[in-house]
Amino acid sequence: MALEPETALQHPMDYLAVLSDIVPQAMKDGKVCKEEIIGIGSDFTASTVLPVTADGTPLCILDEFKVKPFAWVKLWKDHASQPEADEMNTLAEETNQPFLARYGGKLSSEWMFPKSLRMLRKAPHIYEKADKIIEAGDWLVWQLCGKEVRSSCQAGYKGMWSKSEGYPSSEFLNTFHPKFKSFVEDKLTGEIHPLGNAAGGLLPGWAEKLGMVAGTPVAVSIIDAHAAVLGSSVADAGKMVLALGTSTCHLVMNEENIPASGVAGIVEDGIAPGFAAYESGQSAVGDIFLWFLRNYVNPALEEKAKQAGKDIFAYFEELATKVHAGSNGLLALDWWNGNRSTLMDANLSGLMIGLTLATRPEEVYRALIESTAFGTLAIIENHTQQGIAIDELYAGGGLAEKNALLMQIYADVTGRTIKVAASSQAAALGAAIAGSVAAGSERGGYDSFKEAIAVMAHIKEKIYIPNESNHTVYKKVYTEYKKLYEAFGSYTLDTMKKLREIRDEANGIIKN
Amino acid sequence: MALEPETALQHPMDYLAVLSDIVPQAMKDGKVCKEEIIGIGSDFTASTVLPVTADGTPLCILDEFKVKPFAWVKLWKDHASQPEADEMNTLAEETNQPFLARYGGKLSSEWMFPKSLRMLRKAPHIYEKADKIIEAGDWLVWQLCGKEVRSSCQAGYKGMWSKSEGYPSSEFLNTFHPKFKSFVEDKLTGEIHPLGNAAGGLLPGWAEKLGMVAGTPVAVSIIDAHAAVLGSSVADAGKMVLALGTSTCHLVMNEENIPASGVAGIVEDGIAPGFAAYESGQSAVGDIFLWFLRNYVNPALEEKAKQAGKDIFAYFEELATKVHAGSNGLLALDWWNGNRSTLMDANLSGLMIGLTLATRPEEVYRALIESTAFGTLAIIENHTQQGIAIDELYAGGGLAEKNALLMQIYADVTGRTIKVAASSQAAALGAAIAGSVAAGSERGGYDSFKEAIAVMAHIKEKIYIPNESNHTVYKKVYTEYKKLYEAFGSYTLDTMKKLREIRDEANGIIKN
Repeated sequence: MALEPETALQHPMDYLAVLSDIVPQAMKDGKVCKEEIIGIGSDFTASTVLPVTADGTPLCILDEFKVKPFAWVKLWKDHASQPEADEMNTLAEETNQPFLARYGGKLSSEWMFPKSLRMLRKAPHIYEKADKIIEAGDWLVWQLCGKEVRSSCQAGYKGMWSKSEGYPSSEFLNTFHPKFKSFVEDKLTGEIHPLGNAAGGLLPGWAEKLGMVAGTPVAVSIIDAHAAVLGSSVADAGKMVLALGTSTCHLVMNEENIPASGVAGIVEDGIAPGFAAYESGQSAVGDIFLWFLRNYVNPALEEKAKQAGKDIFAYFEELATKVHAGSNGLLALDWWNGNRSTLMDANLSGLMIGLTLATRPEEVYRALIESTAFGTLAIIENHTQQGIAIDELYAGGGLAEKNALLMQIYADVTGRTIKVAASSQAAALGAAIAGSVAAGSERGGYDSFKEAIAVMAHIKEKIYIPNESNHTVYKKVYTEYKKLYEAFGSYTLDTMKKLREIRDEANGIIKN
Repeated sequence: MALEPETALQHPMDYLAVLSDIVPQAMKDGKVCKEEIIGIGSDFTASTVLPVTADGTPLCILDEFKVKPFAWVKLWKDHASQPEADEMNTLAEETNQPFLARYGGKLSSEWMFPKSLRMLRKAPHIYEKADKIIEAGDWLVWQLCGKEVRSSCQAGYKGMWSKSEGYPSSEFLNTFHPKFKSFVEDKLTGEIHPLGNAAGGLLPGWAEKLGMVAGTPVAVSIIDAHAAVLGSSVADAGKMVLALGTSTCHLVMNEENIPASGVAGIVEDGIAPGFAAYESGQSAVGDIFLWFLRNYVNPALEEKAKQAGKDIFAYFEELATKVHAGSNGLLALDWWNGNRSTLMDANLSGLMIGLTLATRPEEVYRALIESTAFGTLAIIENHTQQGIAIDELYAGGGLAEKNALLMQIYADVTGRTIKVAASSQAAALGAAIAGSVAAGSERGGYDSFKEAIAVMAHIKEKIYIPNESNHTVYKKVYTEYKKLYEAFGSYTLDTMKKLREIRDEANGIIKN
């Protein structure tokens, strides 16, 4: 079965298989006995959605849907629903929908509503058969505790919901398809609960599989990046947390709820109570480095890495560290998977400029890292220019842990100090913090995130401080980055969009 | 000794060593006895220049200059003299120098005058010591026959000389440096002879080394690409010959001598008598493919090539053939070594756009080939828009011989039929044709190029005919190519130039 371009699927049973496998092993390795576990928290990518029956059975495990892509989990990075997102954006703007301001003026093709509308249009029989469409994170919690409770964090950031305004109106939804009118009532069942709540207690079957105590409180699901904020010990305004992984999420809190364009989502109490939480993101970061290192490293360099006893990531970090700021003469636009913030446009693509016959692989690699740092700076400036202060950066996630060069380049490019979460699994720690709050003090946990963080989350001793001379060089390169950002991002040069049209036509794909 | 960026050097004694080694072997392999050789022709890259003493001794073999870069041969692709070329262009334009029209309005940093001026400024002691500065092709002929005879082809295309107007005036040259005023009289000694003339007879010492007869006529040197025109059997107007190699030369004759901007050189009788010959070029073509295939092919693909019993070039041709026109969604500007025609700007650099996480190496490779085809189409259009007809393409050189995919892409992109020189060494055959004309009919050769070509040069049976459906797709991609060409080539977006400035500053190089 050929997939649409921009499709990214996962199978939901893998999530359960992983739990049964990893959790008992982790408890054994950590020498933790089940009585010590007072609460369970989980974080998940979002918007990662799947269609299920009334009892939560994923459609893709039913025989008739096994090979139907729309019955599988559509991963956050699935961008096939761009036409639907475009339509929703146009109409929302024309009809002045109040939710637009909460999403920086633009909805993303990654989200629940565009993905569900595409399913309705492209695979109506699957849409019909689905009793519910649900975030995978909420589905996992449901599996564990038997209760369909939806997370306010996921509904707020990815489901166009807010506590005061609810979901988009049925009038709005009706415009796209008569059956979409009742999408919310039909498919988005289940109560929405805030972070830190317990959705329910662990089911006996799962308690046995995981080696835990039945009834242990299971916390409402959190988006992985948002969990990383807690895991990075941030509970204040002005501290932007970068959850650096295959993609990057940028989260910062502000006391005032100021509307801001080019931000992916603004949710009141979205992370810590009392603050408006702003989310932005880069759709590909680590994925770009992986793309390059997996496909474009020649055998001689692989051999040298082996001889140095290093994996290819560590070896290229070493090589690229020797390349001085600005000396590669290269610049990239980090849009290998489109641009999430500040443009929210999946039609954009990666660009590299400045290539010469003397350009070396490690120079390309460094340019890729630099481009993601410039992308982060563009996001930071988008906040500060609209009155949301960003004084310091905190970083968590695999890249922050492993790649000192990357962290230093981010400090040099942004001109800001970066602190790194002590835990190499900041998101998982954040989920654990949510688990401890879901348990509450009476079970030995905490009654607020602030209390939990004070005890459970830390930063590393090593703090990255901007090198002023590199910062001066990077300011110049960033000026060029912004020129290209504006030319290609505003379609003054619409080549990226045109190439995509030509590509889709050449591949016989009519996008609609 | 650190080299300036953009420097490319060769050692002149390598040229002689190669002759002594290769010529006797080739005669042996070809079962040719010395009496059968009636004339000697040689072709050479240009402008490839070196400083020598009065007797022709290269300065770089003298002890005091052995490690001095400016004493070595500066290869055509050496672009370090861009500042000098820029200055000359500015002044020539301001003072309306007549030679400008012959060079499409712009002199190149690759040529004799900018390279010599840079030597005078950066290494004045070497300039002083040089009794002559000479094209390597002319120097080689001098070595063989003991006579310093300069080629009208090299002087015309690369030395700012024309039969009717001579060299630039000493007033013009004086502006750049007082000692440059008498550059022509001081350094450019030796008579200028037209193509097909004999410069002299083979010296006895060389006759012995090569296993030839002393006194055999040695033809005046020809530029390699121009020789390829003869070797491709072209002696008419409207047939553009592409000499496809590490770089590409584009040569076409026209009955009328029409001035044309963006052309690298226009020389009356520059190839065949009675025609104005137009030269354009792309500074890197095969070099770009080499850059990619040598540095960016991963071990798994190398292994697969091995298993298929193919070298990496043949294997990537096979992979890239399966990529349909337009389906890679990629586009490159083929400026890895700057742009020779139509912009004559060495500050430009390579660009690739449309990259995604799904982009595969063979798609990148195909985009690189396509970009050089688009560059050739831009050159063709620059001619036709100025009234110089181009009806058919002829191709010679290593790439034309070996890479059927490349030839088909060129036909599809340009919408023109391409004939390929039968000889895999079209330039060498052209040189041999010049040798036979230098010998003349009385020694068993020919009295004109036309007669010689009729007998000696042929085209292959396989003719590349444009695929109309691919041509339609490529027209759309070319529209995008031209958009980027104009934006970056006109400095509407001056990022390439700025990146180069930042790079040079980061590397501690002050360009002047």
